[in-house]
Amino acid sequence: LKLLTLARDLKRRKAREKHSLFVAEGVRAVEELLRSPLTIRGVLIAPQLLEAPRGAALAAEVNTRGVKVEQVEPVAFGSAAETDSPQGVIAIAVIPDRSLSALAENWKGVLLVLDAVQDPGNVGTIVRTAAALGAAATVALPGTVDLWNAKVVRSGMGAHFRHPVFSSTWSELDTFRARAGLALFAADAGGEAVSAVLPVSAARIGLIVGNEGAGLSPDARARADRTIALPLARDSESLNVAVAAGILLYTLTS
Amino acid sequence: LKLLTLARDLKRRKAREKHSLFVAEGVRAVEELLRSPLTIRGVLIAPQLLEAPRGAALAAEVNTRGVKVEQVEPVAFGSAAETDSPQGVIAIAVIPDRSLSALAENWKGVLLVLDAVQDPGNVGTIVRTAAALGAAATVALPGTVDLWNAKVVRSGMGAHFRHPVFSSTWSELDTFRARAGLALFAADAGGEAVSAVLPVSAARIGLIVGNEGAGLSPDARARADRTIALPLARDSESLNVAVAAGILLYTLTS
Repeated sequence: LKLLTLARDLKRRKAREKHSLFVAEGVRAVEELLRSPLTIRGVLIAPQLLEAPRGAALAAEVNTRGVKVEQVEPVAFGSAAETDSPQGVIAIAVIPDRSLSALAENWKGVLLVLDAVQDPGNVGTIVRTAAALGAAATVALPGTVDLWNAKVVRSGMGAHFRHPVFSSTWSELDTFRARAGLALFAADAGGEAVSAVLPVSAARIGLIVGNEGAGLSPDARARADRTIALPLARDSESLNVAVAAGILLYTLTS
Repeated sequence: LKLLTLARDLKRRKAREKHSLFVAEGVRAVEELLRSPLTIRGVLIAPQLLEAPRGAALAAEVNTRGVKVEQVEPVAFGSAAETDSPQGVIAIAVIPDRSLSALAENWKGVLLVLDAVQDPGNVGTIVRTAAALGAAATVALPGTVDLWNAKVVRSGMGAHFRHPVFSSTWSELDTFRARAGLALFAADAGGEAVSAVLPVSAARIGLIVGNEGAGLSPDARARADRTIALPLARDSESLNVAVAAGILLYTLTS
């Protein structure tokens, strides 16, 4: 299969799941991928990559590493790219095989749980935040945009390559929760002020954040040990979900 | 001047500054605008607005309020719209006349200072966050994207209509700082942990956040009383600027 054909096909979630492959686009993302332990299947390069020194250096590095390279013309490249002004480099890499059951037995801290969070930019920013603030993993529950969607990966700024991200069903989370002794805190505007749950005595916390418009799902509400909120100004309805996740994660872990 | 022509013209920052007008697009934004004290110059409506009950209710409300309405065909409407699938409503409203010198004498808390923050989505999310967490105002220093850019307004989710946002020069900020006794804290990965500045004794804080790629400008560095950081995992370079602003704002005010 030509890499170009494969890269185009991987725009579809079903294709990503079938092949266990994803696409990372742009100079910075591919640089981060080369620095990570992930397996790269191949790299597509368009002529514009070589115009800037950083792009040329990346192309040289790709060659040095013995990664399969396919040179393509700008128009063909554009058909595989997600961005409007592509930088001329797309890598196809293997989605790491991670799951709740593979989480180390001895972790402590916070597991971030995404309950039908739908905007790719929000989810990518949440993955970036969770990695930077030292969360144990980010878990996508049903209804959440695919964690390996190209826009999510781009907004993650490389965090996907070092921080465990994977999807899970509620039933898998239930099993894990019983085994790991997870306290579930769900973010909800109607919850108690987060300051009221501090300091947290549970060693393992699952922090659930819900959909941008609808908030928590019935599945999340039914499972939450407590619902927590950030006190907001009277005329403000809500925070952006990535901002709320960041503040809560920081507050629960510091 | 026809509203359609004006709305198209207001895509340019220079036109917004010349007319002191901005554009709010979409059902939710126009609903928020109607609830706010801002002056609406007129509303453009395309037929698709009336297809959903919420859109039809908004059109009725606009008529009740005696606002000037211009009905336009979908193609013409699309030429003024910023989004790919416009909902069929655009309002043109007056940019509120706000400035540092008009800030009340008796305010306490945090003034958020944007130092060349460039992504419209980030700036809109920061305005939304600042409003929700009760910041006194959000001030855009040179190099920051226009606060009244349509994408910034959209990401602000209505916060622009109730929270003071305006631009300022560094020299205006210097004058205000001397008068108001503002302690300037600048966010920087190399700064001291934010926990080290808590509790903050200054009644008035200016929290500076910098450009997404380049970080703080020399102007900001020269003025900062202290530089503060959020402790990050070793392999993480940075947080998204809106997430960082949210965590710091929450930490400094709670």
